[in-house]
Amino acid sequence: AIVAEIERMLAGENAGALSGTHALVTAGPTREPLDPVRFLSNHSSGKQGYAIAEALARLGAQVTLVSGPVSLPAPRGVNLVPVETARQMLKACEDALPTDVFVSVAAVADWRPARAATKKLKIKGAGSEHPSMELTENPDILKTLANKRKNRPSLVIGFAAETHDVEEHAVAKLKRKNCDWIVANDVSGDVMGGTENEIALISRDGSERWPRMGKDEVARRLALKIAETVGDEGDGLKLAAE
Amino acid sequence: AIVAEIERMLAGENAGALSGTHALVTAGPTREPLDPVRFLSNHSSGKQGYAIAEALARLGAQVTLVSGPVSLPAPRGVNLVPVETARQMLKACEDALPTDVFVSVAAVADWRPARAATKKLKIKGAGSEHPSMELTENPDILKTLANKRKNRPSLVIGFAAETHDVEEHAVAKLKRKNCDWIVANDVSGDVMGGTENEIALISRDGSERWPRMGKDEVARRLALKIAETVGDEGDGLKLAAE
Repeated sequence: AIVAEIERMLAGENAGALSGTHALVTAGPTREPLDPVRFLSNHSSGKQGYAIAEALARLGAQVTLVSGPVSLPAPRGVNLVPVETARQMLKACEDALPTDVFVSVAAVADWRPARAATKKLKIKGAGSEHPSMELTENPDILKTLANKRKNRPSLVIGFAAETHDVEEHAVAKLKRKNCDWIVANDVSGDVMGGTENEIALISRDGSERWPRMGKDEVARRLALKIAETVGDEGDGLKLAAE
Repeated sequence: AIVAEIERMLAGENAGALSGTHALVTAGPTREPLDPVRFLSNHSSGKQGYAIAEALARLGAQVTLVSGPVSLPAPRGVNLVPVETARQMLKACEDALPTDVFVSVAAVADWRPARAATKKLKIKGAGSEHPSMELTENPDILKTLANKRKNRPSLVIGFAAETHDVEEHAVAKLKRKNCDWIVANDVSGDVMGGTENEIALISRDGSERWPRMGKDEVARRLALKIAETVGDEGDGLKLAAE
């Protein structure tokens, strides 16, 4: 019955499954300035987050997409909020609350240069063979939203991009951040920037591995899972191997 | 007479002015990995360097364009060599020698993380309020090529992107790096990533300021200046206020 239901939904018959809900999605990297020219960033292309925002909008959700700098067009029917830094991203997310769903796909820089200079720094090597850049911890957007007393989204989904011990790190992250689900993916291969993804979906009740598929397809399936859980017709389908 | 000549060349009658010459251009930022996910980089879009490569090719030069990661299409008629890091960029430039002209437009990261981890780093803040990232100096591509005993390009042009004291820094850079010309631009405004540029062209003999114009136009004029100096019909036109 569940398989049939999923098939039906995949066929596009569930276009309004998320009508009346508001979803917040973050995507892309953040850029943390060292000075007006240099920054610390990461390889996130934003593709997976943009695809999820679009898939949620297709199911009828009102979607706010808070995005770091990427070279992707805004998905149709989505309210795009462009940001640069983790602190700007947190602010934009908090401004978007209350939401029913929060999908944290952005590769938020966990550290930023402790001091951002307003002029281009002249880093001098003289007298110091290895100068260093002081770092300070960025706000944890996922953890912050997942632990809101007021306005906590009813479904909080984090992503865990790991290069090793993927599921172990993902389960630890779920507990540490107080998420409901973690989408764990292994970025040790060619996933980052690519068009495909291979993920494991982890909840407090269990986990399921999905075969390698296009990022659009990951997005579509994840949006359907979300609709089953928070949508009008949701029956709280549990995650389990199918 | 010079103005008339420039007008004629701007009109496109000098399409073969650089025939038989080889030009090497670098463009874009470099990305310096901290681990497989994170990197240190800068805001260079690559637009000015790509435009210069294309303008040189239009004048008949054989052009090698060594480019850091940008989201621009390869210019027509140019041999594009994509790289990520400063060290890769230096290697690709040295592999391209001998060349008649070297135009160093890339915003090469002067520093890189001293140790690039092969696994995603778990930066721990516990026990240290401000952890730091050790940096090590990158090779200086402009200085290295400008000081080659064998195979030094006969015309070496550097770019100086500065946010303050632009010409002062540019003159100092010309001497320090042993360049023939420096193209100095002020990136304190909205130039970086934009389509326009406002530059000063500095040689050992003097300098001239160009009005704000499109990056394509800067490229076209610079290519003509280069053709006057190294092209078949070059008469060694000196830089001076016109």
